[in-house]
Amino acid sequence: MATKKTDDKMGQSRQQIGKKIEEQATGIVADIMKGAGPSIAIPVRGSRNVEFDKEKKKIVLGDKIAHRYLFNVGHARKFMQTMLVASYVKKDLLENNLTATLRDLYYAKKHTIAGTKEDTIDDQKESDLAIVDFEVSLDTFREKLNLRAEPKGRMAGSVIIEDRVRNKVDSIDLSHMGSGGWAVPSIVEQIEFKKVDVDYVLVAEKNAIFDRLNEDEYWAKNNCLIMTTAGQAARGARRLLQRLNEELKLPVYILTDADPYGWYIYSTMKYGSMALAHESDRLGCPNANFIGMSISDIEHYDLKAVTIKAKDVDIKRAEEMKKYDWFKAKEWQLEINKFLEKKIKAEIQSLSSKNLQYISNTYLPEKINNKDFLP
Amino acid sequence: MATKKTDDKMGQSRQQIGKKIEEQATGIVADIMKGAGPSIAIPVRGSRNVEFDKEKKKIVLGDKIAHRYLFNVGHARKFMQTMLVASYVKKDLLENNLTATLRDLYYAKKHTIAGTKEDTIDDQKESDLAIVDFEVSLDTFREKLNLRAEPKGRMAGSVIIEDRVRNKVDSIDLSHMGSGGWAVPSIVEQIEFKKVDVDYVLVAEKNAIFDRLNEDEYWAKNNCLIMTTAGQAARGARRLLQRLNEELKLPVYILTDADPYGWYIYSTMKYGSMALAHESDRLGCPNANFIGMSISDIEHYDLKAVTIKAKDVDIKRAEEMKKYDWFKAKEWQLEINKFLEKKIKAEIQSLSSKNLQYISNTYLPEKINNKDFLP
Repeated sequence: MATKKTDDKMGQSRQQIGKKIEEQATGIVADIMKGAGPSIAIPVRGSRNVEFDKEKKKIVLGDKIAHRYLFNVGHARKFMQTMLVASYVKKDLLENNLTATLRDLYYAKKHTIAGTKEDTIDDQKESDLAIVDFEVSLDTFREKLNLRAEPKGRMAGSVIIEDRVRNKVDSIDLSHMGSGGWAVPSIVEQIEFKKVDVDYVLVAEKNAIFDRLNEDEYWAKNNCLIMTTAGQAARGARRLLQRLNEELKLPVYILTDADPYGWYIYSTMKYGSMALAHESDRLGCPNANFIGMSISDIEHYDLKAVTIKAKDVDIKRAEEMKKYDWFKAKEWQLEINKFLEKKIKAEIQSLSSKNLQYISNTYLPEKINNKDFLP
Repeated sequence: MATKKTDDKMGQSRQQIGKKIEEQATGIVADIMKGAGPSIAIPVRGSRNVEFDKEKKKIVLGDKIAHRYLFNVGHARKFMQTMLVASYVKKDLLENNLTATLRDLYYAKKHTIAGTKEDTIDDQKESDLAIVDFEVSLDTFREKLNLRAEPKGRMAGSVIIEDRVRNKVDSIDLSHMGSGGWAVPSIVEQIEFKKVDVDYVLVAEKNAIFDRLNEDEYWAKNNCLIMTTAGQAARGARRLLQRLNEELKLPVYILTDADPYGWYIYSTMKYGSMALAHESDRLGCPNANFIGMSISDIEHYDLKAVTIKAKDVDIKRAEEMKKYDWFKAKEWQLEINKFLEKKIKAEIQSLSSKNLQYISNTYLPEKINNKDFLP
């Protein structure tokens, strides 16, 4: 099983984005030429325009659109900042085939406006917001604008990928990455899956679990790709999971601690988040399943002695999550109720109380064989 | 240039540690047999036994030794916990050629003592302390005991390493790791350097800088190995740097932000830290140099417009660091004084205000050519 993304397709995509930016700019110039106040249409973000799309199974933006006008005292500064972002993305990044971080953009575009004591950008928060505005106004996401986020995560398994850094193409065999694994980059759009000999993807919230599975050759014995997100998943890891699921049709199973924070990590990977609702389409992986650890596992695997008493903040979080549309499935409601009743949580590593390799030799194979997942 | 660690040597080393543990245990048993109270000799940690060894250029433990007695009400619990650690390391890990985290050990050895309501370990802090006691009592470090820490860091460059996961040996070419890089594992003792075509190692505190250098093919153009520690360096990254420097005689240059936190990251990699003084021998890299960013660079590279006002906490930290033995070199005293006078700091990424590739094309090559380092 393998997909092929041609150079053309990758190149075209950068060109297409460039063209979109040009069209937006041309519209603004046209407004100016005909004496109209130039404006940009930007979908509204924030809770008043966030909804759960049951069909797509994603937390998405609603259809509220705001217009940002240059000739509005309240808008002018933001309008200018959005234009600075547009210019940096187009001229500095896309045209040179270079990527940069949000912080690079901030430093590059911060300057004192000639003849004034006013800075274009006072604080990076301003340019970060302008970047999100720009992304959503173009209906794209920052990685397509060659903007990098902090990378996090590691992978191993019988998959050969091709990754490129500008014009250099590397073939990377993820089954020969030793004890370290391959570090998941921030932008994964350019990655091509060359040879994929796995049946599913197993994502562990924790580095320690990845190391355990890798040492136990879990991925070789069980024919899967393993990944750790090292906590809350970074954008690169989320997007790569989506691609593995949607392009290669690989099932994705997510393994977190048995607590509300683990559920949150899972739900963000699966549905997206309210804060990044505008990105769910590109970062969500709605077909992912929760493989564990569940509160029910505590009983089933006799882990009571190594549980942890839930804190007030866990209880509060669970009560909130119980109300979310994306936790309304009866399996999740049962799970959350069980947690609220017992008020205990458990870490994946509590399985080490049985024996170190219990997770690789017993727990995970059982869960997979029995299809013992939560939706 | 390449070194070779034979399988024998690796195996022997595990055997040697196993033998040391046996000897310690035999001594304890002998004490018991002759009716003496068994004890373990443990070098004292903490500020009253930490000193700066000017010759070794390392923050090390002094020669104060404490004895821990089983038949002392204040010691008995800790004595028992140290024995639990010893048994886990010997029987569960070394004999099975498995590695585990501190948390795995905690879960494996936590249980209620038969006939009592007392748990062997209440809190992971207890077993963590017992692990450090055990390490120093054997004059070794936890990686040799097959105990893993949280891994962090990525690498790229013209170096081929061999890494092994139990009996599987992988040859990894760090010059073909795409945009992600190879993830530095937690334990690096088993790594062999097979082919090393680089002149130096450049360590960036930040992921973003690694990505910049990698995209600019800095390591290929400048014949070096690049690494990011992604913040304060993890144990695996520190140990690997030491090995690259001491075994391969590669110069190590460290690049951090121009602020006291950056200096701290640097000094920990170079000299070790007070909290981990017992580990400096295995984790320190005393020949490393500080390549930047220096406070002097702010003037030299005309970065004043993109500096950040120092906070009170920065000032306080700088005043403390000025007094440390390991910052007494006149170059560092000048640097710290300059900071205290100007009260500004700067990030490496502020170089992006010139142009995105300035760091790769101008700043670093200049610094290296001029040997413009701090000691």
